[in-house]
Amino acid sequence: MILRIDRLQTKLPPPSDPDPIGASAVQELLGGKFGEMSTFMNYTYQSFNFRNRQGARPFYDLLASIAAEEFGHIELVSTAINTMLTGAADGTPGESGSLADVKGTRNTQQFIAGGASALVQDSMGKPWSGDYVNATGDLIGDLTHNFFLETGARNNKLKVYEMVEHPAARALTGYLLVRGGVHQVAYARALENLTGADMMKLFPSPRIPTDKIPECQPHIERGEHLKLYRFSPTDFHELAAVFNGPHPETGEELQVAEEIAPEGAPAFDLPSQPAVFAPGPQPEEIEEIAQKLRESAGLSKEPSGVVVQSADTNGNADSVMDKVKEAIA
Amino acid sequence: MILRIDRLQTKLPPPSDPDPIGASAVQELLGGKFGEMSTFMNYTYQSFNFRNRQGARPFYDLLASIAAEEFGHIELVSTAINTMLTGAADGTPGESGSLADVKGTRNTQQFIAGGASALVQDSMGKPWSGDYVNATGDLIGDLTHNFFLETGARNNKLKVYEMVEHPAARALTGYLLVRGGVHQVAYARALENLTGADMMKLFPSPRIPTDKIPECQPHIERGEHLKLYRFSPTDFHELAAVFNGPHPETGEELQVAEEIAPEGAPAFDLPSQPAVFAPGPQPEEIEEIAQKLRESAGLSKEPSGVVVQSADTNGNADSVMDKVKEAIA
Amino acid sequence: MILRIDRLQTKLPPPSDPDPIGASAVQELLGGKFGEMSTFMNYTYQSFNFRNRQGARPFYDLLASIAAEEFGHIELVSTAINTMLTGAADGTPGESGSLADVKGTRNTQQFIAGGASALVQDSMGKPWSGDYVNATGDLIGDLTHNFFLETGARNNKLKVYEMVEHPAARALTGYLLVRGGVHQVAYARALENLTGADMMKLFPSPRIPTDKIPECQPHIERGEHLKLYRFSPTDFHELAAVFNGPHPETGEELQVAEEIAPEGAPAFDLPSQPAVFAPGPQPEEIEEIAQKLRESAGLSKEPSGVVVQSADTNGNADSVMDKVKEAIA
Amino acid sequence: MILRIDRLQTKLPPPSDPDPIGASAVQELLGGKFGEMSTFMNYTYQSFNFRNRQGARPFYDLLASIAAEEFGHIELVSTAINTMLTGAADGTPGESGSLADVKGTRNTQQFIAGGASALVQDSMGKPWSGDYVNATGDLIGDLTHNFFLETGARNNKLKVYEMVEHPAARALTGYLLVRGGVHQVAYARALENLTGADMMKLFPSPRIPTDKIPECQPHIERGEHLKLYRFSPTDFHELAAVFNGPHPETGEELQVAEEIAPEGAPAFDLPSQPAVFAPGPQPEEIEEIAQKLRESAGLSKEPSGVVVQSADTNGNADSVMDKVKEAIA
Amino acid sequence: MILRIDRLQTKLPPPSDPDPIGASAVQELLGGKFGEMSTFMNYTYQSFNFRNRQGARPFYDLLASIAAEEFGHIELVSTAINTMLTGAADGTPGESGSLADVKGTRNTQQFIAGGASALVQDSMGKPWSGDYVNATGDLIGDLTHNFFLETGARNNKLKVYEMVEHPAARALTGYLLVRGGVHQVAYARALENLTGADMMKLFPSPRIPTDKIPECQPHIERGEHLKLYRFSPTDFHELAAVFNGPHPETGEELQVAEEIAPEGAPAFDLPSQPAVFAPGPQPEEIEEIAQKLRESAGLSKEPSGVVVQSADTNGNADSVMDKVKEAIA
Amino acid sequence: MILRIDRLQTKLPPPSDPDPIGASAVQELLGGKFGEMSTFMNYTYQSFNFRNRQGARPFYDLLASIAAEEFGHIELVSTAINTMLTGAADGTPGESGSLADVKGTRNTQQFIAGGASALVQDSMGKPWSGDYVNATGDLIGDLTHNFFLETGARNNKLKVYEMVEHPAARALTGYLLVRGGVHQVAYARALENLTGADMMKLFPSPRIPTDKIPECQPHIERGEHLKLYRFSPTDFHELAAVFNGPHPETGEELQVAEEIAPEGAPAFDLPSQPAVFAPGPQPEEIEEIAQKLRESAGLSKEPSGVVVQSADTNGNADSVMDKVKEAIA
Repeated sequence: MILRIDRLQTKLPPPSDPDPIGASAVQELLGGKFGEMSTFMNYTYQSFNFRNRQGARPFYDLLASIAAEEFGHIELVSTAINTMLTGAADGTPGESGSLADVKGTRNTQQFIAGGASALVQDSMGKPWSGDYVNATGDLIGDLTHNFFLETGARNNKLKVYEMVEHPAARALTGYLLVRGGVHQVAYARALENLTGADMMKLFPSPRIPTDKIPECQPHIERGEHLKLYRFSPTDFHELAAVFNGPHPETGEELQVAEEIAPEGAPAFDLPSQPAVFAPGPQPEEIEEIAQKLRESAGLSKEPSGVVVQSADTNGNADSVMDKVKEAIA
Repeated sequence: MILRIDRLQTKLPPPSDPDPIGASAVQELLGGKFGEMSTFMNYTYQSFNFRNRQGARPFYDLLASIAAEEFGHIELVSTAINTMLTGAADGTPGESGSLADVKGTRNTQQFIAGGASALVQDSMGKPWSGDYVNATGDLIGDLTHNFFLETGARNNKLKVYEMVEHPAARALTGYLLVRGGVHQVAYARALENLTGADMMKLFPSPRIPTDKIPECQPHIERGEHLKLYRFSPTDFHELAAVFNGPHPETGEELQVAEEIAPEGAPAFDLPSQPAVFAPGPQPEEIEEIAQKLRESAGLSKEPSGVVVQSADTNGNADSVMDKVKEAIA
Repeated sequence: MILRIDRLQTKLPPPSDPDPIGASAVQELLGGKFGEMSTFMNYTYQSFNFRNRQGARPFYDLLASIAAEEFGHIELVSTAINTMLTGAADGTPGESGSLADVKGTRNTQQFIAGGASALVQDSMGKPWSGDYVNATGDLIGDLTHNFFLETGARNNKLKVYEMVEHPAARALTGYLLVRGGVHQVAYARALENLTGADMMKLFPSPRIPTDKIPECQPHIERGEHLKLYRFSPTDFHELAAVFNGPHPETGEELQVAEEIAPEGAPAFDLPSQPAVFAPGPQPEEIEEIAQKLRESAGLSKEPSGVVVQSADTNGNADSVMDKVKEAIA
Repeated sequence: MILRIDRLQTKLPPPSDPDPIGASAVQELLGGKFGEMSTFMNYTYQSFNFRNRQGARPFYDLLASIAAEEFGHIELVSTAINTMLTGAADGTPGESGSLADVKGTRNTQQFIAGGASALVQDSMGKPWSGDYVNATGDLIGDLTHNFFLETGARNNKLKVYEMVEHPAARALTGYLLVRGGVHQVAYARALENLTGADMMKLFPSPRIPTDKIPECQPHIERGEHLKLYRFSPTDFHELAAVFNGPHPETGEELQVAEEIAPEGAPAFDLPSQPAVFAPGPQPEEIEEIAQKLRESAGLSKEPSGVVVQSADTNGNADSVMDKVKEAIA
Repeated sequence: MILRIDRLQTKLPPPSDPDPIGASAVQELLGGKFGEMSTFMNYTYQSFNFRNRQGARPFYDLLASIAAEEFGHIELVSTAINTMLTGAADGTPGESGSLADVKGTRNTQQFIAGGASALVQDSMGKPWSGDYVNATGDLIGDLTHNFFLETGARNNKLKVYEMVEHPAARALTGYLLVRGGVHQVAYARALENLTGADMMKLFPSPRIPTDKIPECQPHIERGEHLKLYRFSPTDFHELAAVFNGPHPETGEELQVAEEIAPEGAPAFDLPSQPAVFAPGPQPEEIEEIAQKLRESAGLSKEPSGVVVQSADTNGNADSVMDKVKEAIA
Repeated sequence: MILRIDRLQTKLPPPSDPDPIGASAVQELLGGKFGEMSTFMNYTYQSFNFRNRQGARPFYDLLASIAAEEFGHIELVSTAINTMLTGAADGTPGESGSLADVKGTRNTQQFIAGGASALVQDSMGKPWSGDYVNATGDLIGDLTHNFFLETGARNNKLKVYEMVEHPAARALTGYLLVRGGVHQVAYARALENLTGADMMKLFPSPRIPTDKIPECQPHIERGEHLKLYRFSPTDFHELAAVFNGPHPETGEELQVAEEIAPEGAPAFDLPSQPAVFAPGPQPEEIEEIAQKLRESAGLSKEPSGVVVQSADTNGNADSVMDKVKEAIA
């Protein structure tokens, strides 16, 4: 089972100029064959289907803890998409149409099926499929798959980085390139340990110069390219038995983090988008009801959640973007 | 982000007589339109896409914490399927064929694509699809959907209960019927709170007499039909503002659990299945490697994970089932 | 727009021995690439997308009226499947499981997703897809497609006839073979009229000896192999301009029926199946409510619908099949 | 079975400026998960699979008659799309390319697979799937689903309204919002009658102010927001037992229409589009053939169908749009 | 089995101005329902599944040899797409983004999943499906299907011709229209021979005036509209028994080519695209390695393959397009 | 382009006892994610999309020639399936039903959609999808993928070997295990040459003891585990630059075959199956027509094709199997 912590694994920027076309491309990293749904679900089901766990404990622990990290990745990609879509559909309802601005967007369903929000689809609008999961129970086979999956995933991340210049997309891909690289090394190391093959010379694969990508730097500086977290208060201690030795690109020593999980950051409270009913056409009504429910339940008057900044949705500001700018000023 | 705890939310029985046909039906509860992948992913993405969280905090907290519980459900269904498949493909390699026993099974891919293990598919072998997710950002719309989804999910759970008599399937569905019922009530209460509609008279829906199903009883006795857990060490306190009032069927008071999560139980360490390479054709080799890696990493000689019982895979017992029986004797 | 008449286009037998395996094969004729959903939807959308209707009126009328007939065909196939499934899942709820009898069936979703009922799927459980529709607007192209579609559809019908011996399946396919043959001739005639090609020598295609299939005989005797109905109280008179000349197999004259539609027959009122909640676990409760609603609306005390025979669902007969047999005695 | 009447349920405007991008968005209302194919097919199959019809007659009649109305809705959406596409691909064949104008359109298949015409797809080009149908046979479950489906459908309709300003799209969505609202109320009322739950406070859901949408007004003024039609010359009288009481938004009394079906309107005869072979590259040839066939069949010299206006396709006008404008002048 | 010859069946132009939007439309001819994957796979599987080959040899030979030709067609369409995409993603990595130019393209996966290259998808990004194959074993049924398939395929080819003006698209479709026409005639002739029906009057279908399309002319002049090749050094001699008689449009005699296959032309060596890692970010490194491997294997110093022109990838030219222009100067 | 040779790459046994359940499992090796359609299409499209071929010629040649071999593999799997299905549907048409014997088979479409023949589907009836193709243009990425794909493919082959004891299935998988192993080595060697990583220690992966599988022996004895063929009369000479060095399991030297392609064997002429219209309900009619066509085309009286043995389809033998046995006696 899992416990959830209401923080992102890394900080993402607040909404700025909306970029729905860019957001449609970022979907590839969420619901594409090599997107984070695939990494999350592959490792999760590989851990569920793992037989003889005690006998092969270090490998089980490795899979289970990386799987846990990947949940944070689907959360991050979704947040980036939602950030990029904020304010894109903001017209006046009626004659001209409150969604007229996005009539020509690539992914109409982000606005029709969603509320200016992420979908479980790739960049062509094809839904993620359970078919993308390879959880054969064959440890060497699954690790080979995982190494390949991370290779493809990093390829896609760099391409989205180069395609979409929105700050949220760049911050996202900068972080994921670093963390995906760690997972790729982890699976290669596991294969080496099981077979004796020397796979370190395959790195970097693809040849991505993360040391030259500005958005990767803060994470590399914090050593995020070198360490795995256990992502468990109680378990998965044995990944240390597999994840060690020198990093194939820098020669630095791989390590299991002392902290259970990265400190992360609270999410920015993305503002309501009344034109797409998110969370409703009159968000302040919902707020009022929430306020009353909180009171009658004896909870504190102020919302207890922690967010980077709460967006003002009661005001009569001109547009959502104004409200956002105000909020982040 | 999440932390993972290496325990099941409830105890499931160890392998007994294998039931691959039954296991193919149980897949509906994992990868079907109304399966646990759908509940897990719907609430997860609804929480990711939630706008104005501070304003509507009690509802956000409700969605986020139920989403976290659902991870435990995909884990439980997978475990039940894996349990039911253990020992099903256990023939002698060669002339007669080690998988000859499952040639006529309904879901061949559990053995060809998987290692006698769960797939992200429904009972007809159709992969789960991102299309099954409804995360529109419209709070009332999403809650209406969730109420319907839980209604359909309980219908399917009962049907699988009535179709498959294997102890693992029965223990699974008994538990899920109780917990799914709580989620259904939670969404109905949220709708009531937002609109004033009285939805309690819709219960039970479908008319499932959980009080007469033996496998539901231990959970009802522990009050599991009445409480929601926060599933977070730090967050989601405000679900108390929505989840309260009398239970629609029993009149007892709904409550937020004091514990963060149920105590749960360690999983049974499902034995290796060499005939399907899970975790490999010679599991003892992997064990030996793991042992050495553990030692050279300075870890304890014994595996640190906690399981109900570790299966003996080194022995030269006649068959996997013998080993299982031995192990659980 | 359409008006609906609560009668089947032909009589189907009442439930007898259930045949769920057979019913899973009959699904091919409903949701398969060459099933009735495909014929219904192809001609319907071809009529919707028809341009210059006045100029090409006889062809539009032909498509529109055959499309209307095809609705009756999806109704017939569904009814046959439901008939074959009646009584298949009829065990005692609880320990042994009320659906235990169908654990090994080919299409589990007929019982889990459905209520012992038809699904919009083919015989492998693959859902019907909008991709099966060819409505290009190109009249000659669409007619060529339709001729091919009917050819494939008849092939499939004969194969299901030869595969499934259940009386409902045989009555169904006997009828559909005759009517599908008429449609095939109609499209060939339309092509001939547009191009001058002589297509009559292609018949029968495939070489199906309908004159030797017992279940085809009553329909052939009534001349159903020779005539098209307009299926409209007001429209589609001009199909007579296309549908004429000698039948390619018998030489008899093709004709437009004087009646608007076949007389048809009321459906048998398929009995409730409490084990699958159809229409609920306690059908008599629903009956009672319906009774009260009818009364307070000032309607007649007796249900106004016409069915072959109303099934007794209040009684405490031993099994649904007993009830069916009683009902039809 | 059905009879077809060659009229639209409501009037739609003639072609004006083509809007292929808008038409690609309107596809969501045809082949999307919440589109009219879904409402049509859900209620149709629920009626086919309905067991114990006599016992639960009022509910059967409700489903069957709404299903019949939905056929008219797929016809309307298709017509609107075809109208919006008319004239979009109208260049000179050859060097520049007669379809060059739509090279960058969102849905290329409307022109490559179709003849400037509707497809059985959603707004992302994904085909409609039989998977979208929920016909479980469980009356309460199905009604819960239908209420949710109509909720989602209205959400999508409003969004398309706000996204696409083309007169055909606006006329379409204005009408569908009103009629969909009636269906939503009908299903809520049916649930209330079966369970006693008070669902009227859920309205409007989503909070769509139909009374402020100009294109809804003519329909509201005619009382179309209050009444259900039987859509049958002979059957479905008992829906009056379920569909009654005050409208949840206006308090006016719900009613069963005295007329069997709305009067509707003839369709505009959409002009041929030779560049996409609809109905052919030289439509006048087809006309000539049709003329001869009509004559030799002894039919009237003039086409017997009724359309708003027949488009001139013989002329040598400069462009299709000119012809349209001429035709409607 | 097959032998592969490293030549295209016809000459295609070298890269010029990139046209990614056009290339997304051309995908319909590769992975669409009527694309070349469908023709290739339909005839291939029909030949694999052919029973009683000796008895029906002329028909088997016809299918098998046309199947072989179709491989050349998927190669041609892929080459045209790759040609059109060359140089489209050519920005400077980093701040502005090397793929920024294609952020708004219709098919993002051509750049994210591919390396500025063809995908096995249609023009809407939907993957080709094994469902598109009809290989029923029924000779008359399969030939009817094939005639229809070629009809649809030619319709799509003309539409892509008219939609996309890029020289590679035009050269491609000009050639395919001619060759597809021959296949269509072949299947019609086969049907005539088997049934006696006169299908020649169906031509041309659709009414495509290939004699007026400039890009068809060189092929018609070479008689490519009249002949079938055996595409085998040893087999398929008997297609002459079926493919004979006058061409339905020109009256010229159909013939089996004396040459086994068309002479064809070497492909242009499409230049590397470092921004999408094709064949890598530093193609010259791969070249150097290849050079060394060739030497140590004792092969000639120069690459042995024949291409129209080898692109210079070592140079420091300003852009890929410059390099291309240089190369073809 | 390709030339086709009408021979199988290896000999497969003639029909014996039919095994439709087994044949449904073998489908995984044709249309499954790791089936031969996937290997064929992956390498084919990777060769089509290969950029800078001259620079990286040895790698292009490797991909192109292995792709050509894979065509032979889809042919072999199809032939095995067709062989296993021969005689399975052989009842008397009419009352009992000529297909009654396969009513309960796993893959009904092999008989309804096919003529007792292979489909482009996996073992669960899911069609092969273009999504399974990875042709990114990134040479190292694609080779990594291919190594993984062959790993998964060999896993599946062994499992089908162990599941299905039919001689055709065993002969098939015995051969494919050997040849797939060569491809896996080839891709590993290519990766080694490009990166310097030592991948040979990964073998065998999975740990399949081909030296102990009887059906692998004849191929190993002929050295088929050591050599690649060019599969081209003219091209692909440079694969020798990559494919060399010692075999990772046996230490023997890898080599490029002197012959262009294996000698192979003619196929057995699978007998007609009139019950499924393959090639028609009266195959002798087709034979007679073929005979006449051959004569009037001036061809030899005897069919020119070479098959192992021509099946007698004119006789009035009791059953197809009798005819087969007679034919092979």
